Amino acid sequence: MKYIQSAKNPTVKQWKKLLSKKERDNSGKYLIEGFHLVEEALKEQDIIQEVIVSEGTELPVGFQLNGVEVTYVSEEVMKAISDTESPQGIAAICEQKALSINNIEGKTFLLIDAVQDPGNIGTMIRTADAAGIDAVVLGNGCADPYNPKVIRSTQGSIFHLPVIKGDLLDFIGQMKQKDIPVYGTSLENAASFDQAAKSDRFALIVGNEGGGVSKELLANTDMNLYIPIHGRSESLNVAVAAGILLYHLRA
Amino acid sequence: MKYIQSAKNPTVKQWKKLLSKKERDNSGKYLIEGFHLVEEALKEQDIIQEVIVSEGTELPVGFQLNGVEVTYVSEEVMKAISDTESPQGIAAICEQKALSINNIEGKTFLLIDAVQDPGNIGTMIRTADAAGIDAVVLGNGCADPYNPKVIRSTQGSIFHLPVIKGDLLDFIGQMKQKDIPVYGTSLENAASFDQAAKSDRFALIVGNEGGGVSKELLANTDMNLYIPIHGRSESLNVAVAAGILLYHLRA
Repeated sequence: MKYIQSAKNPTVKQWKKLLSKKERDNSGKYLIEGFHLVEEALKEQDIIQEVIVSEGTELPVGFQLNGVEVTYVSEEVMKAISDTESPQGIAAICEQKALSINNIEGKTFLLIDAVQDPGNIGTMIRTADAAGIDAVVLGNGCADPYNPKVIRSTQGSIFHLPVIKGDLLDFIGQMKQKDIPVYGTSLENAASFDQAAKSDRFALIVGNEGGGVSKELLANTDMNLYIPIHGRSESLNVAVAAGILLYHLRA
Repeated sequence: MKYIQSAKNPTVKQWKKLLSKKERDNSGKYLIEGFHLVEEALKEQDIIQEVIVSEGTELPVGFQLNGVEVTYVSEEVMKAISDTESPQGIAAICEQKALSINNIEGKTFLLIDAVQDPGNIGTMIRTADAAGIDAVVLGNGCADPYNPKVIRSTQGSIFHLPVIKGDLLDFIGQMKQKDIPVYGTSLENAASFDQAAKSDRFALIVGNEGGGVSKELLANTDMNLYIPIHGRSESLNVAVAAGILLYHLRA
């Protein structure tokens, strides 16, 4: 049994670095924590490299490690690598999937342009999963999908569908070749969303909390949509808007 | 011109106490911060009692104080009363509206049962405003609507429509008397939401992030609805679900 006592152990220092985007980008790895997320990740092939359990933590009945290696650690180590105030006693080192926008399969897509709030990104990945969307594409300026707050907000959906970083303009080009309609979202020069036909083929673009979808992208869509504001709020939260639109558009 | 230098000033101590729910409940007051929120609140009658501006803060061109009293304070004071890491230099003391569920007017309502996350409560108030809903009713176990995080997430919508704390079972009784259909949300013994007719009269109940709407409430609705999960996520975020349902139900 592998056991690490000290938070100064070099392996622990390496794990802890995964809390920074730079190290996640360099290593292609990321860290997840909590029973629900680790359990969801264990159901998939080739995501978890190593499970980390702190002493005194009991694995729930029926928890399947599926042959993955476990390292036991002190509570001090778990605290050091945790992004939360009260760690649940379980974490895991995961491998990022090397996905390119050039070989994504599917017919329904959510494209996210420069959304910065990790909770919004995570909630949209969860919503896209619920709506049965085939993949999520994160354009420039989006929060890193392997940020711990994003992963927590996905509630495990990050393991259920491809989440790819890529250039959205390139991706729109691919959609045109495949004859998949692309919908932007905009408050100006747009049609009410209920004008868009339900379909099993579409790509929807949502944009930055303040600035919306970039003009360049909006100029390259097939149609731009807005959600009518009937009251006095200026706009909807981007994740709420994505939910309304995805559930309207899907056939 | 009124100016307060020290964070130990008794008035400042009194303001700071408004960061706790207990003091907000006792005093019937609450604290808001930031230009956008203060500006939205100033547009309404009888919300703001007093505006607080820290030295060196310039009011934007066109900012209308509408005759409300201003107290200038040191940066130290602003930091002491602020709930955020980088205060914007403006705050205000507001008066809670004494609203009772017994005299709410309207035909469309969002009822929230035991939702604890302030961001979710605030986002739902914003969404209800956008959807043109007449009032939001918060049942037992909900986060306090005057919590600073709730108010920030409403983006000002808290000033646009009545937000009332009350007993949801009592409120359902009132709906029955007024012949307004009440929809619960539930994953079991429920109909797909698109089975519910669009209307200009309805009350929708959404529930706790983990446990959903209480069984007692669900047993007293006219119909319970669910949003189909087409992918592999277990559920939707409650604010996203509220958005999908409100935009579906409204005529």
